Amino acid sequence: MTDFSKTKTLFHLPDGVIYLDGNSLGALPTAVPARVAHMIEAEWGKELIRGWNNAGWMTMPRRVGDRVGALIGAPPGTVVMGDTLSIKVYQALAAAIALNPRRRVILSDNGNFPSDLYIAQGLIGTLGGALELKLLDPEAIEGAIDETIAVLMLTEVDYRTGRLHDMAALTRKARDAGALTVWDLAHSAGALPVDVTSAGADFAVGCTYKYLNGGPGAPAFIYVAPRNAGVALPALSGWMGHQAPFAFDLDYRAGAGIERMRVGTPPILALAALDAALDVWDGVSLQEVRKASIALSELFIREVERRCPQLTLASPRRPEGRGSQVSFRHPDGYAIMRAMIDRGVIGDFRAPDALRFGFTPLYLGEDDVRSAVEILDDVVNNRRWDKDDYRRKELVT
Amino acid sequence: MTDFSKTKTLFHLPDGVIYLDGNSLGALPTAVPARVAHMIEAEWGKELIRGWNNAGWMTMPRRVGDRVGALIGAPPGTVVMGDTLSIKVYQALAAAIALNPRRRVILSDNGNFPSDLYIAQGLIGTLGGALELKLLDPEAIEGAIDETIAVLMLTEVDYRTGRLHDMAALTRKARDAGALTVWDLAHSAGALPVDVTSAGADFAVGCTYKYLNGGPGAPAFIYVAPRNAGVALPALSGWMGHQAPFAFDLDYRAGAGIERMRVGTPPILALAALDAALDVWDGVSLQEVRKASIALSELFIREVERRCPQLTLASPRRPEGRGSQVSFRHPDGYAIMRAMIDRGVIGDFRAPDALRFGFTPLYLGEDDVRSAVEILDDVVNNRRWDKDDYRRKELVT
Repeated sequence: MTDFSKTKTLFHLPDGVIYLDGNSLGALPTAVPARVAHMIEAEWGKELIRGWNNAGWMTMPRRVGDRVGALIGAPPGTVVMGDTLSIKVYQALAAAIALNPRRRVILSDNGNFPSDLYIAQGLIGTLGGALELKLLDPEAIEGAIDETIAVLMLTEVDYRTGRLHDMAALTRKARDAGALTVWDLAHSAGALPVDVTSAGADFAVGCTYKYLNGGPGAPAFIYVAPRNAGVALPALSGWMGHQAPFAFDLDYRAGAGIERMRVGTPPILALAALDAALDVWDGVSLQEVRKASIALSELFIREVERRCPQLTLASPRRPEGRGSQVSFRHPDGYAIMRAMIDRGVIGDFRAPDALRFGFTPLYLGEDDVRSAVEILDDVVNNRRWDKDDYRRKELVT
Repeated sequence: MTDFSKTKTLFHLPDGVIYLDGNSLGALPTAVPARVAHMIEAEWGKELIRGWNNAGWMTMPRRVGDRVGALIGAPPGTVVMGDTLSIKVYQALAAAIALNPRRRVILSDNGNFPSDLYIAQGLIGTLGGALELKLLDPEAIEGAIDETIAVLMLTEVDYRTGRLHDMAALTRKARDAGALTVWDLAHSAGALPVDVTSAGADFAVGCTYKYLNGGPGAPAFIYVAPRNAGVALPALSGWMGHQAPFAFDLDYRAGAGIERMRVGTPPILALAALDAALDVWDGVSLQEVRKASIALSELFIREVERRCPQLTLASPRRPEGRGSQVSFRHPDGYAIMRAMIDRGVIGDFRAPDALRFGFTPLYLGEDDVRSAVEILDDVVNNRRWDKDDYRRKELVT
């Protein structure tokens, strides 16, 4: 049994804050500061260049990758860390396209995270324009998978609504149609059970600063199915993905398996923070996290709908159809969210009108949810949001 | 006047170590641990998602970029931080190729850092193979710049020998021939005066973990000349380079100027470390750093040649023709370097036979150089390196 009262003690949470935004930036695990300080002072400071061997820096992208892999059903040696999610999307998509050269269509949905779509557009431009990015409503994807599709590129959980794609079913249909799959697990990893192996995904990518609590801008991950790992062509062919980086050959030779998805020198400070952050998963069952997340989100929806009928549920009503977040729409959603944040309830806002709330059972309980709804009730029903400075847009919300 | 006795106190250097490898991984600036701890505990820990606005995270890639820009002659607003050097080479090279579409040759030299060449090879593969990477000896580059060249891509300082290209002259010749230039400043930034503006470079890239002391895997930088910034096409078109990242449009529109060279979510921990590390440059003149570096390397060469005639200078003899490192060749260079490191003198080794020594006047003085040569003398002349365990190869040297 996962003891959520214990996991909560593994996070630093400021007093007076109810944090419903772990789907955007996870809270700080208490193990991180000391681990990073050690990395800086004892490893960098004392070992200097020797840290690459003596402190195991060189192998961190693989070792930390295996830890992330364990949370998404990826066997050891199939996941590697580095770069950002956008870069990993580029790598996965470029490799998938090259593995299916006779087809020209990349299929995705208009609920995919925009950066994934931008990266696809940039790659198509670089490839010379013979490819097409076909964007449909999420519900229309299944029916559009056919023999014209080179790559199905989807984010499992919609960043706006939390709508959850059926990864196993869509992947099966894609494979049957001869299409490859690239799954973005940004809002899945650490939020719900994922099994890239049994789903049969070709490539999967994700960030680690949301439910994996790696910190702002933490390194991304890429999974390559073992059947593809030896044949996937690295478009971003950097020295760390070379078969022998320290031979300093003039010609690139792709490294073995997942190693070839490494690019440049790995970000050791950030990997140290993430490595410490991953300790919170020791002994945690993602099935139980999922159960607790559904209980919290069901409670939240029920209470919000009862007390704030002005808000409209934007997320799927069936809990099985959602990830670990819930969104409500309101024309003044932006100002409402600013007013709530001022009162210590931190969620976020996504244009044009969605208030997003993330549920992270590792550090969030039923009492937090009830208190958050109290404050939402007060803000909405007493129009606490109706002030100019709540309407003034900030850079990020 | 730069007071090098003062700058030395700004670094943490372990007792009993003479560090001649700041050209590979810079030493730890004393300001880094507290700054990173503050970022983690006060910013991430307390501000949580609000840190993107309240702690200025979102604008860090530009603000830190301006600080790096000041060290390479780049005006404010022309440099942005992020990713790794290999990724930045890809961005710069892809943009440069697109700006010169009628030509098919990328010219570089076989002393360029291999990752730059690998990235070029991967990009050529992605672009479909119509381009050619032409590799010549460094000395043959100038004579080969002609109207067939699309892009001249060079690293100013050779990672093996320290040989310094004449950036201004080669850039001028390239511009006259209608070629664009991509300069890798990995071994230049913080090592010697660089002026991308007066040289007329089109693009410049570099890492920040060498002479800029940002820590292992610190973020890279990219400079785009103002004349190119508004027309350069971002091949890696991530959301942070979008004109309005938080509008979440479905179509990519390149951001204004250098902003478009941002890709994914910025690595805030690493940027905080780098930002603190850059404080050591306050009041430092790169002209004086250069003068001190030449004095140290001249002393080193003179003493090594006098005491260890078994070693052969692999670097240019004229100090004006070198960066801030000196290499010597010896058939047993690897074992010699291992034996020296065991005795506290840390340099590194590059296959097949080069011992590399970097000179960083900010934290290295004449006494250090003399002591290092004493130990080299003992290791070489008393064959202290002649042991099996010094011959056994480690991952990184």
